[in-house]
Amino acid sequence: MRRVAIVGGGHTDFVFNSPKTGIELFAEAAMEAIYESNLKPKNIQAIYCGNGLGDFSEGQIMIQSYIANDIGCLNVPATRFEGACASATLAIRDAAMWVASGKYDIVLVGGTEKATAMGTPLATRTFAMAHDSRYESPTGLTFPGYFAMLAHLYSSKHNIPLAKLKEQMAMVSVQSHEYGAKNPHAQFRKEITVEKVLSGFMVASPLQLLDCCPFSDGAAALVLASEDVAKKLTDKPVYIVGTGQASSGRMSSQYKYLPRIRARELSVKQAYDMAGVGPEDIDVCELHDCFSIASIIAAECLGFADYGTAGYLWEKGETRIGGKIPINISGGLKSKGHPIGATGASQTYDIVKQLRGELVDQGRQVEGAKVGLVDTLGGDGVICNLILKVD
Amino acid sequence: MRRVAIVGGGHTDFVFNSPKTGIELFAEAAMEAIYESNLKPKNIQAIYCGNGLGDFSEGQIMIQSYIANDIGCLNVPATRFEGACASATLAIRDAAMWVASGKYDIVLVGGTEKATAMGTPLATRTFAMAHDSRYESPTGLTFPGYFAMLAHLYSSKHNIPLAKLKEQMAMVSVQSHEYGAKNPHAQFRKEITVEKVLSGFMVASPLQLLDCCPFSDGAAALVLASEDVAKKLTDKPVYIVGTGQASSGRMSSQYKYLPRIRARELSVKQAYDMAGVGPEDIDVCELHDCFSIASIIAAECLGFADYGTAGYLWEKGETRIGGKIPINISGGLKSKGHPIGATGASQTYDIVKQLRGELVDQGRQVEGAKVGLVDTLGGDGVICNLILKVD
Repeated sequence: MRRVAIVGGGHTDFVFNSPKTGIELFAEAAMEAIYESNLKPKNIQAIYCGNGLGDFSEGQIMIQSYIANDIGCLNVPATRFEGACASATLAIRDAAMWVASGKYDIVLVGGTEKATAMGTPLATRTFAMAHDSRYESPTGLTFPGYFAMLAHLYSSKHNIPLAKLKEQMAMVSVQSHEYGAKNPHAQFRKEITVEKVLSGFMVASPLQLLDCCPFSDGAAALVLASEDVAKKLTDKPVYIVGTGQASSGRMSSQYKYLPRIRARELSVKQAYDMAGVGPEDIDVCELHDCFSIASIIAAECLGFADYGTAGYLWEKGETRIGGKIPINISGGLKSKGHPIGATGASQTYDIVKQLRGELVDQGRQVEGAKVGLVDTLGGDGVICNLILKVD
Repeated sequence: MRRVAIVGGGHTDFVFNSPKTGIELFAEAAMEAIYESNLKPKNIQAIYCGNGLGDFSEGQIMIQSYIANDIGCLNVPATRFEGACASATLAIRDAAMWVASGKYDIVLVGGTEKATAMGTPLATRTFAMAHDSRYESPTGLTFPGYFAMLAHLYSSKHNIPLAKLKEQMAMVSVQSHEYGAKNPHAQFRKEITVEKVLSGFMVASPLQLLDCCPFSDGAAALVLASEDVAKKLTDKPVYIVGTGQASSGRMSSQYKYLPRIRARELSVKQAYDMAGVGPEDIDVCELHDCFSIASIIAAECLGFADYGTAGYLWEKGETRIGGKIPINISGGLKSKGHPIGATGASQTYDIVKQLRGELVDQGRQVEGAKVGLVDTLGGDGVICNLILKVD
């Protein structure tokens, strides 16, 4: 199959209560991506769009058709992917296959979400529908509760006192805010301290307010092209060299692996194998930090640390620029924001910027980054990974 | 790219108010499809699932992960497609590409829906979210209203008196019920008459009750395999030889084409061109008859009749077995039922049965059928077509 490159990207600001609709947000990101790619809407052969909550937040089913219409791609095939927070990453993985296969040369892919209009309490309860509706949702479980349980399991299994773990978790959030403050698209552009995290109100013990990412409104989009077309459009094609996907099913089905997330280990292995690289080759990573504990667990599943030790990566600064594995230099979901169906496209957008070396002015460039990893977790059940590379 | 075949299928009964969940319905169809394909769940490399309303009808987002879990495909990549009524057809088109590309050899694809628990009035209003939420939904438009307007436009544009058109529309429903009565999976297994259609209560003038398909609960699934694998699994592989997809955007964007649906013409052309066939080569067709007028409009867009003349196909019996182009020999959405996200998989399932010659016992076999067409319309905005063929 052909190599597939990302040739341009667009990204809206991530905000609370955007005056724009999800369709309009997508259009803003899409037009930026198309023009950055030196293309026009008429060049787009297909559209792939992640959207998680549009049904509830805006009363909009089948958003893809109106997106195509709004950006001047009338009648172009457009497909919506829903895999909760991983919606856009699924869309990118799929879009890349359509280009790799030779069917399309130039496609648009991204994600959009209006997640804040209903307010955080209702959004949290709505989003809890991503749990199994038969066996887990009825218990009243929400995602803060789910990740709080993982934190307790992690503390217990690895014999790390909860107070110590909470300090490490706080350091995850502190780092995310430090870099997020430099990202012009980020929702929270202010630094915080460990003391501030540890004095925040309790959301779901042991997760305090600043251990949790926000809901956000926003969109991000990318243009994908076959290698030969990409080389005509840009001097800096960023290739999608590895992809992986897996489903974890309901939490109870994962019992013997918890607090690890087995599906993530399998998904990233597919991506590593396809790309012919390993965790030691990754120069920069955007991983799914919906809660601070989620970062620590993810870093281990992705192979950046032994089980029970990833907290030290943050404690020792190894996840910072210049460290062993720079993680979430965008600010991550925590500081940049988390518009559910757009998050995977936003993560990918930021890795593209890193690999192109375009973040120097923002003061958050990982110098010489050549290989990047995207990691997105949808609810507790869908994992998707991408490996990007510049030649 | 490789040829892709359907090697087995499964189909639940389509019913009002199933006691099963959408996940369980999918599992029922999926297990039938897997065993009919002489496979086991462990052979499935990826799952593609259409689901339209699970968020509202069951409080289930990200259904694909729990589906994978329930059928013993834990950790297998699973993706949800949402394109309103066309959800499952999008999933099939996409799944076929993953097999054609060489990435997977054996995948499971289908759709599932619980559309009836909320009752028809609320389901109608919920489903109206598939209109554009900014410019059309706020007018109060629902899909019966949309197709009622198309009927008036059709009558006016083609100078067919409404009374005459209503008679032709009634004949569409009468034929669907005649064949649906023979389909063991159909929701309405009783014949009706033109008089009965014309005396039904008015839903949205000129559409009366029996001009409208029902909401249904149900699922259908198919196993797709690469040609070489398929030949080992079955003596009767049914090849997916053509696919097409297009987005029509909101109704106002289609104004100059209405009551035609331009996106359908473009989508089916892609499928015809890819398959190297034309409408004259189609032996049997399942088209999207959500309302009786929708059948007439679809038959024209698909090339089976000149514009303004498709009503005569039904009037003259040309859409019956033995006619020029047998249409909806399954009973169609009208009689078989319409579980939104499962409908495209159900249509495809029935064409597979026709091409395999397996409907003789049901008294609805189109003798010698070799080439079949699937046509699915999602809301007013997503069109997807498939062309199936046996060697």
